[in-house]
Amino acid sequence: MSILGIENVGSYVPETRISNYERKAQFAIDDHFIEEKIGVHRVSRKSPEEETSDLCLSAYADLETRSGLRREEVEALVVVTQNPDYAIPHTSALVHGRLGLPESCACFDISLGCSGFVYGLSVVTAFMAANGMKKGVLITADPYSKVVNPDDKNTALLFGDAAGATLISTTPVFVPGRYTFGTMGSEFDKLIARDGELYMNGRAVFNFAAKTIPPDIEKMARRNDIAIADIDRFLLHQGSKIIVETIARKLGVPLSKVPFAICGFGNSCASTIPLLLQSELADPAVKTIALSGFGVGLSWASGLLRRVA
Amino acid sequence: MSILGIENVGSYVPETRISNYERKAQFAIDDHFIEEKIGVHRVSRKSPEEETSDLCLSAYADLETRSGLRREEVEALVVVTQNPDYAIPHTSALVHGRLGLPESCACFDISLGCSGFVYGLSVVTAFMAANGMKKGVLITADPYSKVVNPDDKNTALLFGDAAGATLISTTPVFVPGRYTFGTMGSEFDKLIARDGELYMNGRAVFNFAAKTIPPDIEKMARRNDIAIADIDRFLLHQGSKIIVETIARKLGVPLSKVPFAICGFGNSCASTIPLLLQSELADPAVKTIALSGFGVGLSWASGLLRRVA
Repeated sequence: MSILGIENVGSYVPETRISNYERKAQFAIDDHFIEEKIGVHRVSRKSPEEETSDLCLSAYADLETRSGLRREEVEALVVVTQNPDYAIPHTSALVHGRLGLPESCACFDISLGCSGFVYGLSVVTAFMAANGMKKGVLITADPYSKVVNPDDKNTALLFGDAAGATLISTTPVFVPGRYTFGTMGSEFDKLIARDGELYMNGRAVFNFAAKTIPPDIEKMARRNDIAIADIDRFLLHQGSKIIVETIARKLGVPLSKVPFAICGFGNSCASTIPLLLQSELADPAVKTIALSGFGVGLSWASGLLRRVA
Repeated sequence: MSILGIENVGSYVPETRISNYERKAQFAIDDHFIEEKIGVHRVSRKSPEEETSDLCLSAYADLETRSGLRREEVEALVVVTQNPDYAIPHTSALVHGRLGLPESCACFDISLGCSGFVYGLSVVTAFMAANGMKKGVLITADPYSKVVNPDDKNTALLFGDAAGATLISTTPVFVPGRYTFGTMGSEFDKLIARDGELYMNGRAVFNFAAKTIPPDIEKMARRNDIAIADIDRFLLHQGSKIIVETIARKLGVPLSKVPFAICGFGNSCASTIPLLLQSELADPAVKTIALSGFGVGLSWASGLLRRVA
C-alpha cells in the first residue's frame, strides 16, 4: 500500500467583493484596523443564487484543471461545512450527483469550522488508507455570508466566501505526519449561529487562539521529531492578521515563514489553509509545512506536511 | 498497536410514545399497514425541551453505566447527526463541554443519515488507529421529530427519536472487517429537509434499498471471504418492516437471523443499528454480524463484525 498525501489543491473565490474601506464610517473603523488588526481589505461574497454545493463544484473544477483528475477515479468525496445546502441530505451527496461520480464513491460531510481542513485531512487520509482507496477529494466550503449579519462589526468585515478542493492520492507532493487535536467544548458559545445568524466573541476567540495554538504547534512538532526552526512554512488558519502575527511571535518564527494572504477576500473558515497550500505546492524550496486550524467549537488541530515530490 | 473494535454500546429512547393505532382514521391506515408494512406500532418522541445534545448525553450515560468508561480516557468523540443543536458549532463540541472531556479529545460531527453508523464506524476506527488512540465514542443522534410534519403520512408514522453511543476501543468484543460504501447523489431529493420540513419519497427509497442493498451485502461478504450462509446476524437499518424482510428474502437468509425490533419506537435513522447491536453483544453464539445502513443521500454502507471476546 502506497502512502497517501496531498497531490494537488483547487480553489474558488467568488468575484464579488465588499470593500472594508467603504464601510469605515458605518463601523467607526480606520485604516489601521483594516490593514493591521484584521488585515482584511475586502471580503468576497458569493452571488445570492450560488449555493454551497456550487462553491464545491467551482473548486472541484479548478482541481480538475490543475490535476487532470478523472471523475471515475474518485473513491471518496468529503465536504467540510457548517453551511450546507440542506441540513438533510449532506452536501457531498449533491456534489456527487452533479459531478456524476461513481456509485461506489464514499461520501460524507464533516461538520467543523476553522479547524476543519486539518481534522479533515487526517480523517479522510485515515479513512482512505483503511479502505484501500487511492484517490479522494476533501472539499472545504463554508460560505459564512449565509449567516453573517452585514451590520455586525465582529463578523461582517472579516469573513469571506471561498472553497478549496484537495486531492488526496497515492502519488502525493506532501505527506502528512502526526497530528494534535483539541476541543474546548465549554466555550461553544463564543462562535455560534443562533436562528441563522452568526455571533462571535472576537476577544474570547483571539485569547483562546493566542494561548492555545503556539504550545499546540510545539507539541505537534515534537511528535514529528522536528524543531520549530526547521519548519519552512507555518500555514495558520487566517483568523485575522493580528492572530496570525501573535502566534508567529510566540513561536519565535519570522513572518516570512508565516504567510498572511487574505487581504483581498477575507477569512473563509476551513478553506484558508488549502488556499495558502496551493501556493506552496509549486515551490520546491518548501520541504516542511506546519498546519494549524482553530476556531468554532472551540476546536483546533495541527499537523506537519513533508514534501516527497 | 492493538486492533480497534466495538467494546460496548449505550442507548437512549425517550419515554414519550405516539401510537399509530390511534392515528388510523387520520391517515386512513389499517392494522396490516401498521404491523406488516411499516412494522411501527408507536413512535418515540423527545420532549420539546430536549435537544440533540441531550439525547447524546443520555446515550453516553447508559454507555458509562454499561462499560465503566471514564471520561478522562476519551480521546475522540464523534456525533453523527443531521439535526444538530446548532448548525455552528458541531454538536460534539457541546457534548464534549457538558461531559467535561479532556481538552486533548478530538471532536467532530459527521453529517449522514441512515447509513451514518456504518460509515461512522469505519471513519472513527480509521481515524483513531491512524492517530494512536485507544478509546473513542461514536454517538448517533438524529431526532427526526425536529423536522417531521405530524400530518405527513410518509414520515410521521415511521420515524422515532433515539440515540446510540458506541465505545470503540483496543479491548473490543467485535472487530470490523472490510466495508463497502456507495452514493447515488442524483437521488438526493428523495429524502430531504426543505425549510425545516422532512420530505420522503417512500416508494423511491424502498426501490433503491431493495435493488441496491442485497448485492451490496453480497459484495461486502465476498470482500470479507465469508459466505452469506455463514453470517450469524444481519443488522439492517430498520427503515421499515417490509424493506428489512425484502432484503432478507433477496439474500435468501431466514428472518431469525435478521432482527426487526423497532415496533415500540420507530426508525431512529443512524441509531437503529447500534440499538440492535446492543442486544447481540451479550450473546456469545453470535460470532459474525453483517451491518448495512442505507437512506439519506442516497447513501449506503455495509460491513462485517467478527466476535473476538
